[in-house]
Amino acid sequence: MEQQVADIGIVGLGVMGSSLALNIERHGYGVAAWERDPQLAETFAAGEARGKQIAIFKDPAQMVHALKRPRRILMMVKAGPPVDWTIEQFIPYLEGDDILIDGGNSHFEDTRRRAAALNARGLRYIGMGVSGGERGALFGPSLMPGGSRSAYDELRPILEDIAAKTDDGPCVAYIGPDGAGHFVKMVHNGIEYGVMQLIAEVYDIMRRALGLGAEELAQVFDRWNAGALQSFLLEITAKIFRVRDRETGQPLVDLVLDRAEQKGTGKWTTQTALDLGVPTPTIDAGVEARLISSLKEERVRAARLFEEAANEGRREINERERIAQDLHDALYASELCAYAQGMSLIRAASNEFDWGIDLSEVARIWKGGCIIRARLLDRVKNAYLRDKGLPNLLLDPEIARLIIPLQGAWRRAVSLAVNDGVPCLGLAASLAYFDSYRSERLPQNLTQAQRDLFGAHTYERADKPELGHIHTDWERAADQ
Amino acid sequence: MEQQVADIGIVGLGVMGSSLALNIERHGYGVAAWERDPQLAETFAAGEARGKQIAIFKDPAQMVHALKRPRRILMMVKAGPPVDWTIEQFIPYLEGDDILIDGGNSHFEDTRRRAAALNARGLRYIGMGVSGGERGALFGPSLMPGGSRSAYDELRPILEDIAAKTDDGPCVAYIGPDGAGHFVKMVHNGIEYGVMQLIAEVYDIMRRALGLGAEELAQVFDRWNAGALQSFLLEITAKIFRVRDRETGQPLVDLVLDRAEQKGTGKWTTQTALDLGVPTPTIDAGVEARLISSLKEERVRAARLFEEAANEGRREINERERIAQDLHDALYASELCAYAQGMSLIRAASNEFDWGIDLSEVARIWKGGCIIRARLLDRVKNAYLRDKGLPNLLLDPEIARLIIPLQGAWRRAVSLAVNDGVPCLGLAASLAYFDSYRSERLPQNLTQAQRDLFGAHTYERADKPELGHIHTDWERAADQ
Repeated sequence: MEQQVADIGIVGLGVMGSSLALNIERHGYGVAAWERDPQLAETFAAGEARGKQIAIFKDPAQMVHALKRPRRILMMVKAGPPVDWTIEQFIPYLEGDDILIDGGNSHFEDTRRRAAALNARGLRYIGMGVSGGERGALFGPSLMPGGSRSAYDELRPILEDIAAKTDDGPCVAYIGPDGAGHFVKMVHNGIEYGVMQLIAEVYDIMRRALGLGAEELAQVFDRWNAGALQSFLLEITAKIFRVRDRETGQPLVDLVLDRAEQKGTGKWTTQTALDLGVPTPTIDAGVEARLISSLKEERVRAARLFEEAANEGRREINERERIAQDLHDALYASELCAYAQGMSLIRAASNEFDWGIDLSEVARIWKGGCIIRARLLDRVKNAYLRDKGLPNLLLDPEIARLIIPLQGAWRRAVSLAVNDGVPCLGLAASLAYFDSYRSERLPQNLTQAQRDLFGAHTYERADKPELGHIHTDWERAADQ
Repeated sequence: MEQQVADIGIVGLGVMGSSLALNIERHGYGVAAWERDPQLAETFAAGEARGKQIAIFKDPAQMVHALKRPRRILMMVKAGPPVDWTIEQFIPYLEGDDILIDGGNSHFEDTRRRAAALNARGLRYIGMGVSGGERGALFGPSLMPGGSRSAYDELRPILEDIAAKTDDGPCVAYIGPDGAGHFVKMVHNGIEYGVMQLIAEVYDIMRRALGLGAEELAQVFDRWNAGALQSFLLEITAKIFRVRDRETGQPLVDLVLDRAEQKGTGKWTTQTALDLGVPTPTIDAGVEARLISSLKEERVRAARLFEEAANEGRREINERERIAQDLHDALYASELCAYAQGMSLIRAASNEFDWGIDLSEVARIWKGGCIIRARLLDRVKNAYLRDKGLPNLLLDPEIARLIIPLQGAWRRAVSLAVNDGVPCLGLAASLAYFDSYRSERLPQNLTQAQRDLFGAHTYERADKPELGHIHTDWERAADQ
């Protein structure tokens, strides 16, 4: 490849980096690439990249040399120190207006720090969330770029070309300054944790309380996926139940170890939500449930100890149908809670960091390409189009109208799980979130009175806000 | 006061500092004190400290001069930068073997940092959790000191004199090195958040689903407090329901604004538990519920929107009795979950930081003085005495025997709240924790299969652990 002809440089040729390289090249752009691991570079060069406009270089300087100006370099390396290391490799060869893009799952605070440092050197920085896994990266991911606005405008043609497409346009939009893109990607993953947990719970209830087998489960999820709950996660769930172990002929999912792993973005979402004071119990449930699942040895011990405690039952076929419908409605309402919490969290961060994020655009670009793509995102998008300042998705009249008739089934489904001893942290947390949120009066008046009694933390009067924070000697008053 | 005669110096004469000063002096020790705010110092000197062996100095140097060697200085200042600032004020006047004690609610990581920095200068450092509020500080707190072992040994007579006493001795023990004391205090507060939320929920259910008034609630909590659930928090709850507003004659608690505030230790507990990979859903519920309660204006809006959705009922008197008993049992079982989670978190930190914490000692010193003191801590203590390496409180045979018969009532109580639309995040999260923990098989096999399908994250086989982490092309296999 000649000098200064490549449209973009890609650093890191792992699964995501190489897939994005192929995607970009397929749209007619010349790609220069560098990968630290020579064997990985060689495999890609001799394999999928062969005969394509993808030139792989042996060092950063050569790669930079091959790029048109201002250079655009997309880093697809592991989040954390490798990103800083990679930036250091390129700094000596970059000049004003060049653009560095971090397409990994970096923590948004790291992105804020890096953007500030590189801006101070006159370079432009984009922190871009990329969702969709390998297939998404190859054929159309959802892209969440944040950072330099002018850099985004210059990158826009490439990004729109490679992004997933829906009836609502390409799944990419400028999210906001510095860490906004990675923040939105983090919340995307938090919602993903929540929704995956909800699906796991309804599966567990159908398996343990209804006694459904893999083929029946596949049918239920297929049916649900044909309706309002249509989503990538339901679609793959149905597929998974159809895969059989070649050796034994058993459903393969039954042989998978029930110990879920995590990479950290779910945890970050919960921790960040706490820092910003935003309640996200459905998302938390997703994180917590994975932690409990990892205690496999302890669980086996506990199962022996509490063996008699389980109250699992098998239902008649006609009752199964009704319960499955309840679970559908419970899943629907709970998913809306997961989206409500995630959107409120993005709103809070946008206010805190002055990012000006358009929540309807976030919902729009999640409609395709990403893991949480789902039909209901259209409703989410419309809610924020109707009212840009909507404090919570549950306050949108259309969403409320959707949830109200689901409540009976939602309550029956949680009750059933509770009575049968099937854990339902996510469904129950979602319902408690909903019931708390729709409660004009919560019992935290008692909490405040307790805090004032033992710690003199003061309280406010609901009937006399003008008094501000006051203290009462409750112990003395109780004795009188 | 003459030079070098005071046994201890106290910095900060706020509520906690002045109360501890009076407590220490009452036990025959000479106290030197310094407070940055001259007016606060003056008020204390002319008031409660008058005629006592408490000398208040105008600057750090004078105070240090009044102390016996090696000096012992107890800082009772706000957590965060004020602690670092205070340390800086004293550093110039201290010598080898002098002891600095931080008695505030510092983050354990700050305490680790400060202990290392001061040890490097030859000084000894103690980070000490103090629980019990103003009354506790004055008449007997629970003390959780961590840091220098030799410093603890020298301070031990004073600490044992001023601590609360139970049938199990004074409520103080050496917790472990550097941040161990503040870590245990943080978890104490996390459990406090969880238990307070559980009490708030049973109150809310009795109020909204049973229609009980303040006097009836006071009687219920008094009755519960006379039995296995006896605890400081139930005791004060009963008291609070008996306090009436002088002006209107209404129960004062009904007039308290239902927006709970928090100071951060609950949030830290949840965030730290996530970092250490320990599930703490009951504690999280306490934190999350306070966050939701703070959205008062949004809740009022939502209440209008979902008005018809509530399913609140009033029960017959004989049914009320039965339901109240169910709530008692649900509270009992859920509180055990809060303690189980907190103890497991301390265990994880002790392993991570090599602190060697004795969990039975932690339970013992929480039996008196602190906010979460409760009869059931005796059972917690005994469980860890029986098996020092117990991975989770729920695995103790005696605790299991206690929970098994509570399950029916627990499930009925959560079902009732779920069906009546009364939020029960804490009770439901506790039950889901229990049901997850006692499940030999959880549905996270599906979660792992999904992750492997969309992100090639690999999974393990339950039946063939020797294969390690493997990957399947689920989409292709599903098509076959």
